[in-house]
This record gives sequence, structure tokens and C-alpha cells, in this order.
Amino acid sequence: MEEFAIGIDLGGTNLKGGIVSETGEVLNYSVTSSGNDEGPQRIRACLMNMAARLVALASDNGVKMVGIGVATPGIIDTRFGGLTGGAENLPGWKNTPFMRLLHEQFHLPVHAHNDVSATVLGEFHHGAGVGRRHVVMVSFGTGVGGGIVIDGRFYGGASGYAGEIGHLVTSAFGQVCACGIRGCWEEFASIRGIVRTARRYLGEPGGAKSLINRWLGDGGELGPQIVYEAARLRDETALRIVDEVGCNAAIGIGSLINIFNPELVIVGGGVASTGPLFLDTLTRHLPDWTLKDSLEAASIVPARLGYRAGIIGAATLVFEGINRYASP
Amino acid sequence: MEEFAIGIDLGGTNLKGGIVSETGEVLNYSVTSSGNDEGPQRIRACLMNMAARLVALASDNGVKMVGIGVATPGIIDTRFGGLTGGAENLPGWKNTPFMRLLHEQFHLPVHAHNDVSATVLGEFHHGAGVGRRHVVMVSFGTGVGGGIVIDGRFYGGASGYAGEIGHLVTSAFGQVCACGIRGCWEEFASIRGIVRTARRYLGEPGGAKSLINRWLGDGGELGPQIVYEAARLRDETALRIVDEVGCNAAIGIGSLINIFNPELVIVGGGVASTGPLFLDTLTRHLPDWTLKDSLEAASIVPARLGYRAGIIGAATLVFEGINRYASP
Repeated sequence: MEEFAIGIDLGGTNLKGGIVSETGEVLNYSVTSSGNDEGPQRIRACLMNMAARLVALASDNGVKMVGIGVATPGIIDTRFGGLTGGAENLPGWKNTPFMRLLHEQFHLPVHAHNDVSATVLGEFHHGAGVGRRHVVMVSFGTGVGGGIVIDGRFYGGASGYAGEIGHLVTSAFGQVCACGIRGCWEEFASIRGIVRTARRYLGEPGGAKSLINRWLGDGGELGPQIVYEAARLRDETALRIVDEVGCNAAIGIGSLINIFNPELVIVGGGVASTGPLFLDTLTRHLPDWTLKDSLEAASIVPARLGYRAGIIGAATLVFEGINRYASP
Repeated sequence: MEEFAIGIDLGGTNLKGGIVSETGEVLNYSVTSSGNDEGPQRIRACLMNMAARLVALASDNGVKMVGIGVATPGIIDTRFGGLTGGAENLPGWKNTPFMRLLHEQFHLPVHAHNDVSATVLGEFHHGAGVGRRHVVMVSFGTGVGGGIVIDGRFYGGASGYAGEIGHLVTSAFGQVCACGIRGCWEEFASIRGIVRTARRYLGEPGGAKSLINRWLGDGGELGPQIVYEAARLRDETALRIVDEVGCNAAIGIGSLINIFNPELVIVGGGVASTGPLFLDTLTRHLPDWTLKDSLEAASIVPARLGYRAGIIGAATLVFEGINRYASP
């Protein structure tokens, strides 16, 4: 009989959940507010409600439920049943032993992991990484996150902090990053970096005529969506922005390939989901920043799971036995 | 009865060898020319002579010899019994199946690995890394090399090219590296980088009075030795060079700590062996380039094995069963 797990993906704004099969199919997907605006008590209530609803649905449908997986910002402590740190975007959440609470209420094994790590595990087991052993995943969004799979296993480092690939220093004499380090890759290749690059090109003499400026005048918001849309329509300024963004993305991916010699690089996140132009431009710039032999060994592919990646990754924690709450 | 292996370390200039115990002690150490000036036939003869001498010594002394390990530049192919690539400093060496030749002549298991990888394995098993699981080693010399130990195992990547940490891009708009990539860490933190930094400071108005300039006038060669010696004597220009070099070294080590979250970083190579000043300066700059939690989790220590690292590492390949020649 096929086994199922509940996958829950907690973000700063949304709480997503679903019942996930061993093969990565998502049933009964739903999304609600994470309750973050109203503090940790409210997040906790939203999480318990989501779990209760999914457990009841699973029971009604007679599926074999083997556990609950949660993807959350921060670093997990499986003894405490909550976080040891991180999750700055969810104030107060650090002190809630949500794994213990879920375990006590539903009497199921509870697993949890950092959201980015869970996404990588989801893509590795059920998305673009199926069948590979050495994988680097890079997610371009508000920040630049990602993770590393080494010989089939997610790499967490000595204390769970590994994979902070957005904080590769790629331009030691450049912009200071939000983390305080000067020249982090993230400052160039995240949405912040794209917006900064766009402002610079739009401020140049040719920039005034750009479609982007016209759309901004009509109330559009400066970000990857509008830039990549204008580039698809061959707007000259947009094409220059897209080219520089692709170069900035390639600089860090090249370094990661030089260090890890992966067989596969999975590119995801909100920026990548604007369409194939991002990946195409990045791939075109890669040879400038990568050692030849290592580049030849690596395929660069888009992420496949999209908005469901966190849920599928959370369920994967259950199926793969990763980070189980150590009930006393 | 204690077991021994022959460890041989082949470099562009020297061939080093010794009989190494399971606990990493080196007996009968010797160093000769690698024969590289006279081509691959001569390297082969030097290697076979070295092995023959050590096998005979071991036999005379009645020690239990379990295999021969060789550290060489390049990427090993254990089926061919030689290299698949790399080793640009040893022209023609790529086509010599030295593992097969050693096996046929001495009837012992033969293991080989890239010289940098072997050094890392040596330090990990018998030097500064003993008892650790997650280690990054960085070697500052002609280039910047190193390697990564993940959960106790050397990480080679999908096709053996991993660990090219010198080709992290740390300054995307800086100096082009010898590899062709712009802004590689190696261009800033290797001996080339030190010499370039020194020239710049020595060319400034205050530089003329520097001890370094006096010593260069007396026939000294501009390099780490002379710079660190002058800095020890509190020469002002030398201290400024040393500070910038320490910063450049810290930029890349910080990125590696952010990505790998290692418990230990081992710092070695010719530059590090000039004395404690290099490591001290580098450590002082690290907080500027490293995420706080990951930095707190990492100890930064000097390499311990020095010139014997390659030999001990080569023997470690035998004891650990790594990269054994697959005799048909």
C-alpha cells in the first residue's frame, strides 16, 4: 500500500500544505496566511489547524499516513523540537517547540528542516535532481539561497549552517550585503541586485525611452517580472539589464562549479520562474567564470517543482527519515 | 604487527619518498630530482628507482609493507593506472601508466591521488585534522589549492575536479587569473598576489625607505619570505602589505566557511610557513567576511605536516584504500 506524508511549508507570509505521496504527488494542496503578522502564538495555531485538516482528510480517504514534515526558516533542533536560531522573518517563532506540539497532538513521527534545505531535498528526490548524486541547487529570489547534495545526501556542515551560497564574496570591493559582509553574491544576483542594476541602466541617457519606465509610470513595480517581460519584447535597456544580471548570476554559479564539480546545477526561485531568458543568459555567461573540465561535467537545468517544492521537500524528510523529532 | 606503506610525492621539481607507518611516521625520507626537465621517460625512471630503493629498505628491515602510494599533480584514472588530465607542469606525464608499472614491478597494491588531495588526506588523518569530520584545507603557495573533507571523506565531486577553491571568484571586476577567469581568489592570495600587492605599496612615496627595497637591492627576491621577515621587524610598508594579504586570504576563507560550515580550517602552503604572522592577520580579518554563527563553529589552525604532507598523504591512500589501481 502506498504511503503518504503531510508536507507543510511555513513562510513569512504563507502557510502551504498538502498530502504527499511517496512518489512526490501532492493531494489536497492548500495555502493560507502563516499568521506571522499576529506573532508566534498565531503561527502556531495556523500550523496546528493546517495539520489537523490534513490529518482528518487523510483519515477520511483511508490513506496510510506515515508522518508530518515541516519546512520552516531557521535551523532545527530535533531534541527541543523547534529552532536553535535563524528565522529572523518570523519573530518569536524560535521559542515554539512546534515539532513536539505536532507529535503530542497527532501521534505521528514529526520531521522538520530549514525551508531552503527542504526545497533542495524535494527537487533532489522528486524534481530536477532525480537519479543524480552530486547536485548544487541555487534559488534566486529575495536572497540567493540553495543547498548542496553530496553523494546523494544533503550537506548541512558541522552545525547545520552550510550552504549559505548567497554569501560567497564575489566582489570584495563592491556593495555591502544585508548580512554586513562586503560584496556578497546575493547583493548582485538577488532581486535587490536586479533592482539596483535596473535603476542604473534606467538612469542612463538611453534608459528614459525604455518600456520599463513606461510601465513604471503606469504603476508597475520595479522587479524581475517587469524587466524580463520588457526584455522578451526586445526592449534595449531591459536586454542590457538582463545581460548584466545573467553575468552576475554566472559569477557565483561558476565558483560553485569550480568548488563542487557537481553533475547537476538546479536553478530555481522567483527570478528563474520569470521564464527561460534568465537561465539562457546565465548559461551563456558561465564559460567566463568556470574551469572548462568542471563546466563540461555539469548540466544546468531549471527547478521543476515550483511553488510545491517546499511541501514535497517537507514530506521527503519523512520518507527519507531526516531530522525526526526525538521525543523524550 | 604494525603495517607500513611507501609514500611517494611527485612534484614539478622534486621527488620525495619515505616509508610511512600506519600512525603517520616517516622513515628513510629522501628527496631527489623528479627528472621533469628531461621528460616523462626520465620521471618514470626516477619514480621506479625511488620505489625500488624503498621496497629494498623495507625488505632489509623486515617491515610489513602493504602497498605503494603516489601523490602526483593531475586527475587519476585507476583503470588506466595514470592520469586523465591536468599536470600541466609535468609535460607528457599524462600518458605514463605509472600505477600499472609500479604494480607489475613490485607486486604490491598501488594507490595514487592528486597531490593536493593527498596532502589534505595526510593532514586529515595524521596532522591538524585528526579527530574531525568536516574540514576545509587551504594551501597558499604558487597557487591557492586545497580540499574538502565532508563527514570524514575527501570530496572529489562528480568527476574528480572538486576543490578548486583557488578559483572562487572573489573580485569579479579585478585581475584576470592565470586560468583565464577574471577575479579568482588565487590572483589575490597566492604568491603572485603577494608580489603584486608588494609592488604596489613599494611604488608608493613611503615605500622607498622600506627594508624590503633595501634587501631587494642586496639581491633578495620579492616574495612572501622577504615581506614577512620585514614585517616581523616592524617595517611599515611590509606591515601594510601583510595586512592586505591577510585581508585577501580572509575573503576566500570566509566564503568557504559560509558555504561549508566546517569545524576546522587548516591553513598551509609556502606562504603560511613563513610564520605565525600570516595566520594571525588572516584570522583578524575573518569576521569581516564570514557569517557569525559559522565563524564561531570553525577553528582556524596551521597545517602540521609541512614538507612531509605529500608522502604521508600518499601512504594514507594505501591505508584508507583510496584510488587503488584496478589491475586487469
